[in-house]
Amino acid sequence: MIIISVKVLYAKDLFTSGVKILEKKDDKYGGVVIEMKEMMNPSSFAASLKASLFNWRLQGKKGVWLKLPIELSDLVDVAKKEGFWYHHAEKTYIMMVYWIPKTPSTLPSNASHKVGIGAFVINENEEILVVQEKNGYFAGTGFWKMPTGLVEEGEDVCDAAVREVKEETGIDAEFVEFLAFRQYHKALFSKSDLFFVCKLKPLSTTITKQDSEIETAKWMKMEEYCEQSYVKEHEGFLSVAEICKMASSKKSAYSGFSANLKSQRTPGKKSYVYSSANNI
Amino acid sequence: MIIISVKVLYAKDLFTSGVKILEKKDDKYGGVVIEMKEMMNPSSFAASLKASLFNWRLQGKKGVWLKLPIELSDLVDVAKKEGFWYHHAEKTYIMMVYWIPKTPSTLPSNASHKVGIGAFVINENEEILVVQEKNGYFAGTGFWKMPTGLVEEGEDVCDAAVREVKEETGIDAEFVEFLAFRQYHKALFSKSDLFFVCKLKPLSTTITKQDSEIETAKWMKMEEYCEQSYVKEHEGFLSVAEICKMASSKKSAYSGFSANLKSQRTPGKKSYVYSSANNI
Repeated sequence: MIIISVKVLYAKDLFTSGVKILEKKDDKYGGVVIEMKEMMNPSSFAASLKASLFNWRLQGKKGVWLKLPIELSDLVDVAKKEGFWYHHAEKTYIMMVYWIPKTPSTLPSNASHKVGIGAFVINENEEILVVQEKNGYFAGTGFWKMPTGLVEEGEDVCDAAVREVKEETGIDAEFVEFLAFRQYHKALFSKSDLFFVCKLKPLSTTITKQDSEIETAKWMKMEEYCEQSYVKEHEGFLSVAEICKMASSKKSAYSGFSANLKSQRTPGKKSYVYSSANNI
Repeated sequence: MIIISVKVLYAKDLFTSGVKILEKKDDKYGGVVIEMKEMMNPSSFAASLKASLFNWRLQGKKGVWLKLPIELSDLVDVAKKEGFWYHHAEKTYIMMVYWIPKTPSTLPSNASHKVGIGAFVINENEEILVVQEKNGYFAGTGFWKMPTGLVEEGEDVCDAAVREVKEETGIDAEFVEFLAFRQYHKALFSKSDLFFVCKLKPLSTTITKQDSEIETAKWMKMEEYCEQSYVKEHEGFLSVAEICKMASSKKSAYSGFSANLKSQRTPGKKSYVYSSANNI
């Protein structure tokens, strides 16, 4: 009882001494979210953070998410000294976290993979859409490759393929199915990559290439693509090329994964289930 | 010419005035990597960083990666003031980056997705391995679910399924194929999730459940799993359950994606190509 009284008095002191409790939103897991937007003197921030944590502890709060824009990088050290650690960072902000209860933290982990797509766009003449890039691994090698790109935050993988084809070549296309996927393990700081090979059906024919990234683009006979020495000499490329060849003929017996839109657990949200079972 | 001379003199001044150039490793893209390990006074660090950038600019270096362990959080603000920005962060460190040339940065983006697995482990009696979890969304609901988990950094998706089943239930199993996958889009800070449904063949029968996460585990008739009201009432779960049912019968006509090990572009490295074309 005595200990509790001392705590309450201490909190009261903090609250009445002009220390500002940080503005927060509640999340649905019993935690709070602070999005700092305005500059703040580091020592005022330290006092406010301490008082706020005290306050939230009394309220039985659990996780504390603290989003600091890069302009407020002088507050990172203050939060760390209060016991916060890093959760993730993007170019313009860092997210730091703190766990109030004595039980182990159940805060979710951060992202671990990049997701890329390769677009196999084949027309009725068994020609595929290929590009040569201005930058990157294949620049200047003369290798004709399928359009590729990264899936953006919140974007469906099937939509990413359609978007990349449009951006790089101006061709309108619709998603048919996933033919295969691959996982790469990298060394330097980038974590693992997942790469999905998507079959698309072109809806237009005239190429308008993107100037910034694409050197040149064209329709190329499927056999000619497969005959390139780079494809023949690299097991992974050869394997993907053979899968594409199987899926390219009009009477293809190849069974990829198509997209079926389903409700998510969160009411009102939908997402794709990809499988070889059509309409399930 | 005059400008160049002034620069060289300035650099020489820095180098001879006791300012320490930071230790770095070269990466293979013409950039440098600094892994700070020792505490350093922020103003000494500021001077060293400035001198080092000057030095590397003269050497024609491009990207600069600066890894700061959380113990050195007082240096984050210094690096930001020198023009660095955030690339990514993990619990114990932040990675900051800087781009020296005047051309646009070609530094790779950071991870965007979490990757999870659900393990469909079915034995010869058409029974599947199910668990009830102690924590998380389904805790206390009585819902029997398949073992699930997150793919770890550098881990193959097929191996993650085998590992999670072993950890949660003690059952040894081998990967057969991917039956389907799904992409979820979340709101709060976590980016998108990719979730792979994996079929596994059990190699043992006796369950030894994990105490920390699992309330209980058992073998359950496939029909009984599908009859659970949560499965029947949630479109996404129902869809996955029906796909599993199609793939469960011994004469299954369902065509999932199996794993074929192929060489990566990096010599000596291998990774899986997953497709419905066996042995390609």
